[in-house]
Amino acid sequence: MSNTNRQLRLQNRPKGLLAPGDLQLVEEPVSPLSDGQALARVKYLSIDPTMRVWMAADTYLPAVPIGEVMRAIGFAEIIESRHPDYKKGDRVTGLTGLQDYFILDESAKRSFQKVPKIPFVSDTVFLGVLGINGLTAFFGMEIAASKKGETLVVSAAAGATGSIVGQIGKIHGCRVVGIAGSDDKCAWITKDLGFDAAINYKHADWKKKLAAATPNGIDIDFENVGGEIMQEVLNRMNLHGRVVVCGFISGYTKEDPNMVSLGTVIAKRLRIQGFIILDYASRFMEAATQLGQWKMFGKLKDRETVVEGLEKAPEAINMLFTGGNTGKLIVKL
Amino acid sequence: MSNTNRQLRLQNRPKGLLAPGDLQLVEEPVSPLSDGQALARVKYLSIDPTMRVWMAADTYLPAVPIGEVMRAIGFAEIIESRHPDYKKGDRVTGLTGLQDYFILDESAKRSFQKVPKIPFVSDTVFLGVLGINGLTAFFGMEIAASKKGETLVVSAAAGATGSIVGQIGKIHGCRVVGIAGSDDKCAWITKDLGFDAAINYKHADWKKKLAAATPNGIDIDFENVGGEIMQEVLNRMNLHGRVVVCGFISGYTKEDPNMVSLGTVIAKRLRIQGFIILDYASRFMEAATQLGQWKMFGKLKDRETVVEGLEKAPEAINMLFTGGNTGKLIVKL
Repeated sequence: MSNTNRQLRLQNRPKGLLAPGDLQLVEEPVSPLSDGQALARVKYLSIDPTMRVWMAADTYLPAVPIGEVMRAIGFAEIIESRHPDYKKGDRVTGLTGLQDYFILDESAKRSFQKVPKIPFVSDTVFLGVLGINGLTAFFGMEIAASKKGETLVVSAAAGATGSIVGQIGKIHGCRVVGIAGSDDKCAWITKDLGFDAAINYKHADWKKKLAAATPNGIDIDFENVGGEIMQEVLNRMNLHGRVVVCGFISGYTKEDPNMVSLGTVIAKRLRIQGFIILDYASRFMEAATQLGQWKMFGKLKDRETVVEGLEKAPEAINMLFTGGNTGKLIVKL
Repeated sequence: MSNTNRQLRLQNRPKGLLAPGDLQLVEEPVSPLSDGQALARVKYLSIDPTMRVWMAADTYLPAVPIGEVMRAIGFAEIIESRHPDYKKGDRVTGLTGLQDYFILDESAKRSFQKVPKIPFVSDTVFLGVLGINGLTAFFGMEIAASKKGETLVVSAAAGATGSIVGQIGKIHGCRVVGIAGSDDKCAWITKDLGFDAAINYKHADWKKKLAAATPNGIDIDFENVGGEIMQEVLNRMNLHGRVVVCGFISGYTKEDPNMVSLGTVIAKRLRIQGFIILDYASRFMEAATQLGQWKMFGKLKDRETVVEGLEKAPEAINMLFTGGNTGKLIVKL
């Protein structure tokens, strides 16, 4: 077998949205396998806002080095194996990178998990509801410590994570209000996902509508956006409110320091907590089991925006920041 | 007895520092006691930054209404009583207000606590180490959840609360670095109180000195100041750091919204927690017992800045914001 591996390598640290050439498509032959290696073919790539962070600077993970294959989570199938733990047809998720093929060896193994084939369920569920987004929503909502009857506001509410956060909020008995960037997204999260209300922040009167949708104030802010949207939610927080800081997507393409006013933090006894799901790795199975049950019983609905072709991955990444996707954004190879 | 009660009544909501006339000195005769009342004479007044907040707006307590006696914590002695629970000579602390006398009745009673006479200990300890400042430091440090060997930075470190926070940090086994506004204050907290280092933020190179004093980063920020000082401490926080937000004294005289960058909150998994000690009222005795023990064993040293005369209280309040006091600021009547 002499496959050609197409890869997207990081050539420049982007300014703002990705420009042509920031990720460069290169081809190289797939090396023959040695003992202890398995060859996997990537089928789906998970396109996530945190990838833009990985391109920019060292944060919770080192920045992707210039010239390296861009880091990404993917779903792949083993097509050839000389590793005792993998056989042809095995399916894995993990840090595949933006490429067609990769070689799994002992050192790469701990970044991957084998996943089963589930009847009637798309393989991409392991990238979304049972993957990074479901886990993020699950552990973030644990930090939120929501109580029945409390009001939860989630921003980027029609995104892959936000849409699950809101549904977990409903499972917990909260009043759930989502903030999103189009009327279609707002319709999806209220009509299909069961959010109590949705606010399109692109309407001039969105702050008034947020106030009307949160008549008892806000107990939990599940923050995915930052900036002005976060500030307005902070202004409406109740005593002992919790702000779970998951992402600041409004700032990732602007090198925005995310200035917010902490003026009410003391008097309202707010707790603002940042988190990264890597800290919860030892509990991923527990979370995935619960998420899987909820999914099976119809309590977690999802939607995918699928882009075809590795070469479209840079455009797909930009869609996250321009509002182009609803639900989970996937690149299908 | 026909005593004259001098009172400082709030005439205007101050802009910036208190201006002459914001608190107006008025005199009125003390009314004769009815059954169920006791007359108390104020001996000491506690001058605290939060008083400036009480003048400005409704926050965790309603703003002091215009025309009313200014709210303040004081130490007083019962000089006449027709209340069964109080007798002449009893000593109380509580919300006396800025005045010479006040009448304790059943409705006011729950805002006051009787305090004992302790040999060799100044009565003012009930306003400082065993009062609002000690309690604030105690519960704030509980929120901080400090571990031995961690680095604690406290701002306004030579203030009544900050000086106790740092000493509790030392009791907990932390490396303690204080930020204060004069070399004298820095000398006091390091030489007398045992802080490991102190930074005078009025020196141009204070950020470099803070970095040098926190070679392993900062695990806990006990924040009393806000603004640029808070930002610099945030920039040096370690993974899983805790920011205990007690006060934003840099902003109280500027109507400053206290904008800070939350850019590192996610990657560093920071927890930012505001608190108000009123929430811990049911545990005040527990805390005071511990604080009293530490004080008795010489582990909590204090210093007082005493201003004589009720009419000087407005100037005393301004001293808090201009750096005029070291340790507990008291007005003695």
